[in-house]
Amino acid sequence: MNEKYVDIDFAKLDIERQKRRGCSEAVFCECKTEEQLVKIFSEFQKQGQNVLGTRVTQSQVQVLQKKFSGLYYNSQARIVKLIQKEINKYGEIAICTGGTGDIPVAEEAAETAEFYGSNVKKYYDIGVAGIHRLFDKIDDIRKANVIIAVAGMEGALGGIIAGLVDVPVIAVPTSVGYGSSFAGLSALLTMLNSCAEGMTVVNIDNGFNAGYSANQINRKISGEK
Amino acid sequence: MNEKYVDIDFAKLDIERQKRRGCSEAVFCECKTEEQLVKIFSEFQKQGQNVLGTRVTQSQVQVLQKKFSGLYYNSQARIVKLIQKEINKYGEIAICTGGTGDIPVAEEAAETAEFYGSNVKKYYDIGVAGIHRLFDKIDDIRKANVIIAVAGMEGALGGIIAGLVDVPVIAVPTSVGYGSSFAGLSALLTMLNSCAEGMTVVNIDNGFNAGYSANQINRKISGEK
Amino acid sequence: MNEKYVDIDFAKLDIERQKRRGCSEAVFCECKTEEQLVKIFSEFQKQGQNVLGTRVTQSQVQVLQKKFSGLYYNSQARIVKLIQKEINKYGEIAICTGGTGDIPVAEEAAETAEFYGSNVKKYYDIGVAGIHRLFDKIDDIRKANVIIAVAGMEGALGGIIAGLVDVPVIAVPTSVGYGSSFAGLSALLTMLNSCAEGMTVVNIDNGFNAGYSANQINRKISGEK
Amino acid sequence: MNEKYVDIDFAKLDIERQKRRGCSEAVFCECKTEEQLVKIFSEFQKQGQNVLGTRVTQSQVQVLQKKFSGLYYNSQARIVKLIQKEINKYGEIAICTGGTGDIPVAEEAAETAEFYGSNVKKYYDIGVAGIHRLFDKIDDIRKANVIIAVAGMEGALGGIIAGLVDVPVIAVPTSVGYGSSFAGLSALLTMLNSCAEGMTVVNIDNGFNAGYSANQINRKISGEK
Amino acid sequence: MNEKYVDIDFAKLDIERQKRRGCSEAVFCECKTEEQLVKIFSEFQKQGQNVLGTRVTQSQVQVLQKKFSGLYYNSQARIVKLIQKEINKYGEIAICTGGTGDIPVAEEAAETAEFYGSNVKKYYDIGVAGIHRLFDKIDDIRKANVIIAVAGMEGALGGIIAGLVDVPVIAVPTSVGYGSSFAGLSALLTMLNSCAEGMTVVNIDNGFNAGYSANQINRKISGEK
Amino acid sequence: MNEKYVDIDFAKLDIERQKRRGCSEAVFCECKTEEQLVKIFSEFQKQGQNVLGTRVTQSQVQVLQKKFSGLYYNSQARIVKLIQKEINKYGEIAICTGGTGDIPVAEEAAETAEFYGSNVKKYYDIGVAGIHRLFDKIDDIRKANVIIAVAGMEGALGGIIAGLVDVPVIAVPTSVGYGSSFAGLSALLTMLNSCAEGMTVVNIDNGFNAGYSANQINRKISGEK
Amino acid sequence: MNEKYVDIDFAKLDIERQKRRGCSEAVFCECKTEEQLVKIFSEFQKQGQNVLGTRVTQSQVQVLQKKFSGLYYNSQARIVKLIQKEINKYGEIAICTGGTGDIPVAEEAAETAEFYGSNVKKYYDIGVAGIHRLFDKIDDIRKANVIIAVAGMEGALGGIIAGLVDVPVIAVPTSVGYGSSFAGLSALLTMLNSCAEGMTVVNIDNGFNAGYSANQINRKISGEK
Amino acid sequence: MNEKYVDIDFAKLDIERQKRRGCSEAVFCECKTEEQLVKIFSEFQKQGQNVLGTRVTQSQVQVLQKKFSGLYYNSQARIVKLIQKEINKYGEIAICTGGTGDIPVAEEAAETAEFYGSNVKKYYDIGVAGIHRLFDKIDDIRKANVIIAVAGMEGALGGIIAGLVDVPVIAVPTSVGYGSSFAGLSALLTMLNSCAEGMTVVNIDNGFNAGYSANQINRKISGEK
Repeated sequence: MNEKYVDIDFAKLDIERQKRRGCSEAVFCECKTEEQLVKIFSEFQKQGQNVLGTRVTQSQVQVLQKKFSGLYYNSQARIVKLIQKEINKYGEIAICTGGTGDIPVAEEAAETAEFYGSNVKKYYDIGVAGIHRLFDKIDDIRKANVIIAVAGMEGALGGIIAGLVDVPVIAVPTSVGYGSSFAGLSALLTMLNSCAEGMTVVNIDNGFNAGYSANQINRKISGEK
Repeated sequence: MNEKYVDIDFAKLDIERQKRRGCSEAVFCECKTEEQLVKIFSEFQKQGQNVLGTRVTQSQVQVLQKKFSGLYYNSQARIVKLIQKEINKYGEIAICTGGTGDIPVAEEAAETAEFYGSNVKKYYDIGVAGIHRLFDKIDDIRKANVIIAVAGMEGALGGIIAGLVDVPVIAVPTSVGYGSSFAGLSALLTMLNSCAEGMTVVNIDNGFNAGYSANQINRKISGEK
Repeated sequence: MNEKYVDIDFAKLDIERQKRRGCSEAVFCECKTEEQLVKIFSEFQKQGQNVLGTRVTQSQVQVLQKKFSGLYYNSQARIVKLIQKEINKYGEIAICTGGTGDIPVAEEAAETAEFYGSNVKKYYDIGVAGIHRLFDKIDDIRKANVIIAVAGMEGALGGIIAGLVDVPVIAVPTSVGYGSSFAGLSALLTMLNSCAEGMTVVNIDNGFNAGYSANQINRKISGEK
Repeated sequence: MNEKYVDIDFAKLDIERQKRRGCSEAVFCECKTEEQLVKIFSEFQKQGQNVLGTRVTQSQVQVLQKKFSGLYYNSQARIVKLIQKEINKYGEIAICTGGTGDIPVAEEAAETAEFYGSNVKKYYDIGVAGIHRLFDKIDDIRKANVIIAVAGMEGALGGIIAGLVDVPVIAVPTSVGYGSSFAGLSALLTMLNSCAEGMTVVNIDNGFNAGYSANQINRKISGEK
Repeated sequence: MNEKYVDIDFAKLDIERQKRRGCSEAVFCECKTEEQLVKIFSEFQKQGQNVLGTRVTQSQVQVLQKKFSGLYYNSQARIVKLIQKEINKYGEIAICTGGTGDIPVAEEAAETAEFYGSNVKKYYDIGVAGIHRLFDKIDDIRKANVIIAVAGMEGALGGIIAGLVDVPVIAVPTSVGYGSSFAGLSALLTMLNSCAEGMTVVNIDNGFNAGYSANQINRKISGEK
Repeated sequence: MNEKYVDIDFAKLDIERQKRRGCSEAVFCECKTEEQLVKIFSEFQKQGQNVLGTRVTQSQVQVLQKKFSGLYYNSQARIVKLIQKEINKYGEIAICTGGTGDIPVAEEAAETAEFYGSNVKKYYDIGVAGIHRLFDKIDDIRKANVIIAVAGMEGALGGIIAGLVDVPVIAVPTSVGYGSSFAGLSALLTMLNSCAEGMTVVNIDNGFNAGYSANQINRKISGEK
Repeated sequence: MNEKYVDIDFAKLDIERQKRRGCSEAVFCECKTEEQLVKIFSEFQKQGQNVLGTRVTQSQVQVLQKKFSGLYYNSQARIVKLIQKEINKYGEIAICTGGTGDIPVAEEAAETAEFYGSNVKKYYDIGVAGIHRLFDKIDDIRKANVIIAVAGMEGALGGIIAGLVDVPVIAVPTSVGYGSSFAGLSALLTMLNSCAEGMTVVNIDNGFNAGYSANQINRKISGEK
Repeated sequence: MNEKYVDIDFAKLDIERQKRRGCSEAVFCECKTEEQLVKIFSEFQKQGQNVLGTRVTQSQVQVLQKKFSGLYYNSQARIVKLIQKEINKYGEIAICTGGTGDIPVAEEAAETAEFYGSNVKKYYDIGVAGIHRLFDKIDDIRKANVIIAVAGMEGALGGIIAGLVDVPVIAVPTSVGYGSSFAGLSALLTMLNSCAEGMTVVNIDNGFNAGYSANQINRKISGEK
C-alpha cells in the first residue's frame, strides 16, 4: 500500500499500475472533458509512459492531435495511442467476429491487445449463418494462444468456437441487432449460458477488456514477465 | 359466426374447431380441476372426437385412466390421448434437441404432431458443444418438410440448423439451464435474434404449439386438406 | 463443408446460399459503411445474383443509386433491390397489420417475400379496436398459403387471426406504441403467449425474417424446388 | 382527520372506512397469522360490521370457521365473509374470463362485488381462441353497467370486449400461463397497451380490486349513495 | 358485424364507432405521415364528425392548420380538434397532478374528456412532498364523479386520493423522473400495487385513455346515453 | 491494515469490527450449515463478544439453543442473540410499518437497533390506505432521532413520512404483495423515486441494515462514541 | 395541516417547508418551462427565501441569469442558487467518487449540502481499480460526520468505504458506464446488496437527495436545530 | 468432422472431446433421470475415461454409488467423479470466496479444476466487509497462475482482486443474497461492469465453467499439452 499516484484533483493517476499489474493504466475518454484529457495525457507523457485512450470522440481527437504530435488514432476502434517506449511483441491472439457490424468492437480489442504487447490475427464475418466460413478458418484460429469471439444479435459464435478448440475463448457480446436483442443483452445471455465450457465473458461492447484480458493470458503463456 | 360450441358453464367447448382450423381443440390440463377434466373429456367423447390433453399432472392421469379406458399416456411429454377415430399419417417432421434435458419438451411436440397426423423422426442430444454430432445427421434432417429445434441454455441449435437447410425451422426454447438462463429467457432471446433467417419461434417449453404449427405446415406441404 | 464464399476481408460473402438454402443471402445494411456496401453489392453483381438490401439508410441509398443504375428502392420498407435475373412467382401470402403505423414493417415483409418469389396480398389497418374490419376481410385472408400478422401496442391481431384459419400464421411484433409497450416487448410477449395455436413469432420489427420464413413455407406448399 | 380507528397494536382497524369511502375495509389474510385474523374478525364483529376476508388459506379458514359460526367460504375465490347486516343489491356487473383457469380470479371479483352490493352475471371461457363464443354472448354482456375481463396468457380478451361496447371495462391479468408469460406480466402489458380505449387495468390476479372498483362505478351509475 | 367503415387503403376508418361505443374514433398522429393525416381528417370532415388528434407533432400541426381552418391546438397536450358539431357537457371530472412536470399528460386527459362531453376541473402540483396542499383541496376533489390522478417519479398520489374518497379513481403514471424511475415504470408499479382499492390504472403517459375512460364512467353516472 | 481476525477456514471472523466500525459483526445464518454456526458462535463466545444472528431458520435455532443456554430468540424477526456484556441504551428510533404483513421485517430492524444500543418505539399498520392513522401518530414519530419506514406493495409510506418531518428517514421495501409487486421491486422503486427528499433506502426485506444504519446515525446524534 | 402554500396555478409553492422540514423546498428545473421557472423563482424571491434550482439546462440558466442578478451557477452540477439570507455552516461531509466521470453527480451533492448548511470536503477519483488511492485518504475521510460515495459502473466504492468507517455512508449510483451497466442499474444493485452494513442508497444520479440527506444527518449530529 | 461419438439414443456421448479440446466431457446431472445417468456413466467407463458429474442430486448419488464402486462424492460441490486413469497435476489456481455461503460454488470450481489437472489453493470468506482479511492473503494469492473469485450479494470481490494482481481473474457470481440481488443478477452485473480490467465472467453459480476455464489457462501457462 505504498504505491504512488499523481493527484491532479479531478483524477488520481495510477502511475505504478504497470509495476503492480503488468500493464499501464488506460484512459476511458468518453465521460471526460477535453480539458481533463489534455491534463491527463500530459501527465502520463511527463512520466514517460505509453498512453492508451479508449472510447474517444471525434472532437476529443481533434483537440488531442493538436496538442500531442504523433498521436495514433483508429477511428473504427475509437482508440488513440501516445507511444513513447517501444513495445516488444509476443504470442498470438485470434480475434473473430460474427458479422461486419461487430468489427468496431473487434478493432478496439485488437488495438488494446497490441498496445500491451500481443500479436493479433483477425478473422472477420465468419458467423453461424454460413458456418462453412468458420470451418474454413478453424485450423488457423486454434493455433492462437487465446481466442476472442465478438458477436451481436444471437451471439452464438463464441460457443461454436469454444466447442472446437483447446485454448481459452473470451466472448464479447456486441450491441449490434435490434428489437429483442435489447442492445446486446441477448448476445450477453447466450454467451453466459453457453454449453461449451472454457469460454468466459466480458461486458457488452467491451473490446478493451477483452483485449486486455486476452493479452494478460497470452503474456503468461508466452512466458513474458 | 354461426359455429356451435358446447356450454358446460366453466368451459365452452369449441367442437367445430377441426372444421374451422383443420385440427380439433386440445385441453390444457394444468390449471383445471380433476372434476372439470372428466367433464370435458366426457363431452368430447360424446361428440366422437379424438382428445389431446397437455401438461397433465400425475394425479390427473390417475383419475382420467380410471374413467376412460384405453387412455394413452406419455409421462415424459405429460400428454394423454383418447383416440376414437383412426389418424391418417402424412409427411415428415424432424425433431431435434440440443441436450438430453430438452427431451420432455421435444416429446410434447412429437406427440402433438403425431396426434394431428404428421410422421415424426427424432434426433436427440446433437447440440453445439459437439457439433460433429449434428453434422453427422444433417443430411437426414434436411429431408423433412419441417424441422423443430428444441434447446435450452444458450439455445444456439435452431440457428445453426436453419443456416444449413432449405425448409422451415420452428425453434422451441426450453427452461433447462440455471443462473442467467432465467428459466428459458436466454434461449428465447437467442432464437428471436438469430442471424439465420427462415426460423420462427414459440413460447418457452411450448412443445405443444411447436408440434401443432409444424403439423399445420406439413399438412399443407403434403397436400392434405 | 466444401461450399465456396468470397472473402473481401471485412465480409465473407456466402455466394452459395441459394444452392444450400433455396434463397440467396440478403445484406443487412444498417451497421455497414457506405464503402462496405458498395463493395458487397459490386461483388454480388459480379456473381450475377439478385441482391436484397434491408434497413438501408437514406444516405446509403443515395450512394448506392449513383453506383448501381436501376436499383429499386422502397423508402417505407427501407429496402433496396438489384435485380439481375427474373423472379418467377408462386403461391400467395397475406400480410395484415393492426394499424397504419405498422405498415413499414409489413412493407419490409412484403418486399422480402416478393424478392424470393411469393405473391403478396395486403390487408392494412384491420386491428382489434374495430374488429368488424377484420371479419369483413377474413374470407379473403384465409385463402392464402401463409399469413403474416404485423402489430404493435397490445399485438393481439395475430392470435385473433390464428383462431379463425387453418393455415400457418407468422406474427411480427412492432415497436409502435409508448410507455409500457417497452419498444415492442408488450406485443412480442402477447404473441408468444397466444392461446391460439398454429402461430409462430419473429423478432420485434423483423419484417425481413417474417417475409423470408413465409416465403419458405409458401415455396414448399407451392411445390417449388 | 378526526376519523376513528381501533388500535389493536399489530393492526389499526379503519372502522369508519364505509363512511369515508362508501365501502367497509376488507382483510387481506395471506400474510397474517391465524391469531391476528381471529382478533381482527372479532373486533369488526363487535362493531357490527360485515367482514370480507381475501386470499384466505385453508388452515386459516378452519380456524375462523370454528370461531365464527355462519362464516361463508368460497374455496375457488379464497374468500370468507361474515355477514351481520343485509346487503341491498343494485345494478349489474358482467364478469368474463378468457379460459377455465382464470375462474378463481373471476370468482374473487364476483364475491367482492356482491359483498359491496352489486349484482353479478358470469361469462366464463369465452376467450379469443374461439371468438364466436364471445360474439354469441356480447349482446348480453353489453347490458351491464360495468364489465370485468379476466384473462391470462396473451390477455387479449379485455381489448376485444372494450372495442365492442360503450360501458367501462376493467381488465384483470392473471398469472395463468407459463414460459414467457412471466407469471402474468405478458397479460398485464397486453392490457395496458390495448388499442381499444375505455379499458383500465388492475394488478395481476387482483380480482378483489377489480370487484371493488367495478362496484364503485356501478354504485354511482345506479344512483346509490 | 354489419358495421361500415371507410377504406382508404392505409387506413380503415371506423366511422360508426360513436354508434357502437358512445364516442367517435380518435386519431393517434405520432406514427402517421402528414399526407396520411390530411387524408384521414378530410374523410372524417366529409362524414361531418368531430375529430380528435392525439400526440401530434409541431410539423404535423402546421400542415393540418393550413388545410383545416379553425383547427384547435393545445401544444402542451399535443392535441388538435376539428369541431363540426356542438358538444353538450355533463358531470365533472377532477384531474390532479403530483407535480408541474406532469401537466402535459394531465392536459391530454383534460382535452380528451372535454372533447367527449365531460366538464373538467384541474388541481395541479398537489403531490405528496407537501401533502397539506392535497388536503386543502380534497373536499372539492371528492365532489367529482370521477378523479384522474397523474403522477411520475414515485407515483404515490393516486393511492393517497383513492384512500380518501368514495368515487372511482383512474391513475396515470408519467415518465417524469430519472434513474430508477425507468421512464415511468416506477410510477406504474406503484399504482398497480396500491393498497387503496377503488383505483384502476392506464398505460404510462396515456392521458388520452384516462380522459376517455373517465368520460365513459362520467357519462353513465350523468345518465347520458 | 494490522487488524486481527480469527481464521476458522470456512470463515474469517472480523473480531475487531467493533473497534473499527463501532458495532460488532453480525452472523447471516441463512446460508450456513448448523455445524458452521455452532463454530462461529463458539468463537465469538470465546472472545467475550455479544453475538447477533440474523435470518436464522427454526432448525438452526433448535441446534443453537441446545448448545448456548440463554440464547434469545425472536421468531418473527428470525433473530437470535447471545448477550455476554450489558448494552447501554441511548436515543430513540421510530419504526413504522404500512401493514401488518410488514411486521417481521420491522422486528428484524428493531432487534438489530436495540442490539447495537438504540431505544426503539414501534408504530405498526399506519399505511396510506387509512392515512388518518399516520396523522394521529406523526407528532410522536417526529420526536425520534431517526425514522425507519417499512412497507411492501406500493411502498408509499416512507415518502409520506419524509415529507412531514425534519429527521432522517430510512425506507425498507418488503416483499409483501403479489403480481406486479415482483417480490418487493415495486416498493423498492417507489422509495428510490420518492419526491420527498431526506429519505434513503436499503435492500428489500433488509430490516437488519435498516436497524444497523439507523443505530449508527442515532449513536452519532446521541453523542455516543 | 394549517400550513400555507402559494398557489400559482401550475405550481403550489411549499413556502413553509423550512419550518416543517428544516430545509426549504428546491426547484427541480428539468421538466419546467422557462416561463414557469421565472415565476417560481420570483415568488420565492418575494418571500425572501434562498432558492436552489437543480438539473437546470443551459438555456434555462440564460433566462434566469437575465432576470435574477447575482444568480450563482455551477455548470458541472447543473445547479443554480439565489442567495438572499446568509447560510451558517456546521459539521463536515466527505464526498468521494470512484472516477472522474462521476464528478457531476458529486458536485450536485456538494452544492446541495452546502446550500443547506454543511461543510463539504471532496475526494475524487479514488475508486477500486487502484485501491491504494482510497487507503491513502481514508483517515481523512472517516473524520467526517457523514460520507457520500458516488460511483458508476460496478459501484463498489460505497461498500469498501462503509467497511472501513464508523459513520453513516450514503451511496449514489451513477449512470456512468455502458453495456450491461444499464444506465446505472448495475451500480444501484451493487450498492443495495452490499455486505457492508451501515450504508443506505439513493436513486441513480440523485446527487441532490444524497446531499440533502447527508446534510440532514450532519445537522442533527452537529446539534443544529 | 470425422470425430466419433457414442449414440445411445437419448444422448450422443462426445468421446473424443479430450482429443479435440484437451479435456473430456463432463455430465450435467441435474436434468437427467437416474436411468439415463447410469447408462452414460457405464458407457464412459467402458471407454476407460475418467468421468465428472456435476449438479448431482442426493438420490442420484445413491443410485450411482450402488452401481459404481469407488465413486468419489463431494456433497457441498454436488460433484461425483469416477477415476480410471491417474491425473497428473500442474500449476496452481487460487480460489477465493467473499463469504461462507459462496463455498459450495467454489468447491464445484475446485473439484473441476483438480479433475482436469490443476493444483488448487483455497481462500474462503475474505470479502470486502472486512477487507484486511483479503490484504492479509494477497501476496499468496497473486502467486497463482489464475485466480477464481466467487462472490454473491454485491459481488465486489473479483474487481478488488483484479486491481491488485497481474494474473487473469475469472469471476463467478453466486445466487447468495436476497431481495434485489435477484438470485445472482446483482453480482453478475457488478462483475461485468468492473473498472478493474483483466477479469472475465462466467454464469451465475457456474463453478464448473470457472474451474474448467481456469484449468485451460493454467494448462497452457504450465506448458502442458
